[in-house]
Amino acid sequence: MELGKPLRAASEGPIRGELWFTELHTPGAGFSLRVRRTLHSERTPFQEIALVETEDFGRVLILDGTIQLTELDEFIYHEMLVHVPMCAHPRPRRVLVIGGGDGGCVREALRHPGVEEVVLVEIDRAVLDCCRKYLPGVAGRLDDPRVEVRIEDGVKFLRRHRGAFDVIIVDSTDPVGMAGPLTREPFFRAAREALAPRGLYAAQSQGPVFEGGQMRRVARAARRVFRSASFYLAATPTYPGGLWSFLLAARGGRPPAARPPRRLPARERTRYYSPAVHRAAFALPPFVEEFVR
Amino acid sequence: MELGKPLRAASEGPIRGELWFTELHTPGAGFSLRVRRTLHSERTPFQEIALVETEDFGRVLILDGTIQLTELDEFIYHEMLVHVPMCAHPRPRRVLVIGGGDGGCVREALRHPGVEEVVLVEIDRAVLDCCRKYLPGVAGRLDDPRVEVRIEDGVKFLRRHRGAFDVIIVDSTDPVGMAGPLTREPFFRAAREALAPRGLYAAQSQGPVFEGGQMRRVARAARRVFRSASFYLAATPTYPGGLWSFLLAARGGRPPAARPPRRLPARERTRYYSPAVHRAAFALPPFVEEFVR
Repeated sequence: MELGKPLRAASEGPIRGELWFTELHTPGAGFSLRVRRTLHSERTPFQEIALVETEDFGRVLILDGTIQLTELDEFIYHEMLVHVPMCAHPRPRRVLVIGGGDGGCVREALRHPGVEEVVLVEIDRAVLDCCRKYLPGVAGRLDDPRVEVRIEDGVKFLRRHRGAFDVIIVDSTDPVGMAGPLTREPFFRAAREALAPRGLYAAQSQGPVFEGGQMRRVARAARRVFRSASFYLAATPTYPGGLWSFLLAARGGRPPAARPPRRLPARERTRYYSPAVHRAAFALPPFVEEFVR
Repeated sequence: MELGKPLRAASEGPIRGELWFTELHTPGAGFSLRVRRTLHSERTPFQEIALVETEDFGRVLILDGTIQLTELDEFIYHEMLVHVPMCAHPRPRRVLVIGGGDGGCVREALRHPGVEEVVLVEIDRAVLDCCRKYLPGVAGRLDDPRVEVRIEDGVKFLRRHRGAFDVIIVDSTDPVGMAGPLTREPFFRAAREALAPRGLYAAQSQGPVFEGGQMRRVARAARRVFRSASFYLAATPTYPGGLWSFLLAARGGRPPAARPPRRLPARERTRYYSPAVHRAAFALPPFVEEFVR
């Protein structure tokens, strides 16, 4: 660079700023997306919501500064969080989703024939409103007649519905603040009691690359409550470390991780999930196994 | 922020700059690491080498602006690139590594009992010198008496060694510029001819999240040359998209992806690789399968 000369030749166009959103995964590592425009931004009683349009990842939902989903890769997280418990269950009819106000889990659960009811319990109505408006590809099935949306606290809802659900899916933010209790023993007990006798419980359980300690804590709490608790993995490009873990637990019976998965109907094309991927997802690398054994 | 007031209270210490290295994975998505100091930086006839010490990922080798390895997660890439072909082969004695001047593949190959010779053919001596000096945990086995290091072009070396190797491992930079030919048919033919009759070929083959087109090109070229060519995956936190693919090809016989893997001796603790992870790695999500079928 030479002082006194313009930084770019005029033919390259004017110098201009660019808006980037950066999420720090550790104090010394960050993931950044170039933002075209902010579509929505709001502080609710529960959290700070932002919905931005990015250059390469489509629209992105950000809660309290943390990326929740991008249009580019949300299919991986939602397919794996939903189809693994749903296909491990012999006949899921009543499904409960706690959190997941973006509607992605509901969308995937409805693809299973035989599902009679999907209840979504989300604490923050503003997430639903924002996603209905700006993420129709994710939230678009929330108005299906089989879906019931409840705006309330998940724990309170669970306590009123004993033995009611075949599959419970917890799609929460990171276990800090509001979502903290969702990975602890009292919540697991309430969820277990809300399961039907052969019911299954699935939840996101953080990434092993940066959050091995969280996985260890979740594994211990889950094993004190459920008859079996296994973990499985999926590659998640926009979550810290690119690798994410999920808990699959059962109220009774033999561990669902060992059952051959039921198949989705052939018309339901999935992009990440398959029966082979389902089985493979439970093969934990030794460094991950160490956290949860 | 209020004009006229200092940006931080004095007790927080002075305002100072921070050095971050940012790799753009797409024009609108980047991965950044905070850098403590640059240990080495050099332009060779082949490429630009940088070796930096980061805040959270240990030392990092960067070639032409692209992260090649970090001390934190290199074990995943090296274990999966090496142990999958080595454990799929019934009795690997002579191993060739092309590229891989950091020594990580050599380190892993030497963990297999029965290995008599590992030849490393790296075009750029400066990479070896830099990694020997600054990454002893990766390059530290290069002086094992079973290792022969050759500084030369991989294709020329292959053409002089017909039928010589049980396993050939290609640990290259991205297939642009210097490494471009390593993913094309003439190179695959030379590699096939350098394999012993039951020999196996493995190579990194880019990530499916951003480089599906590259995987498709590699799959087509490999299938024109090898009797069988399969792909497998590993989670790679510091590579674009967090998910990486590898090609496993065979000169003859039945596809090695279908063989039950040999076991490493129990004393050889691996942190990502295991026989179960080996088998699971070949379960490709449908969106990846689409690129390589």
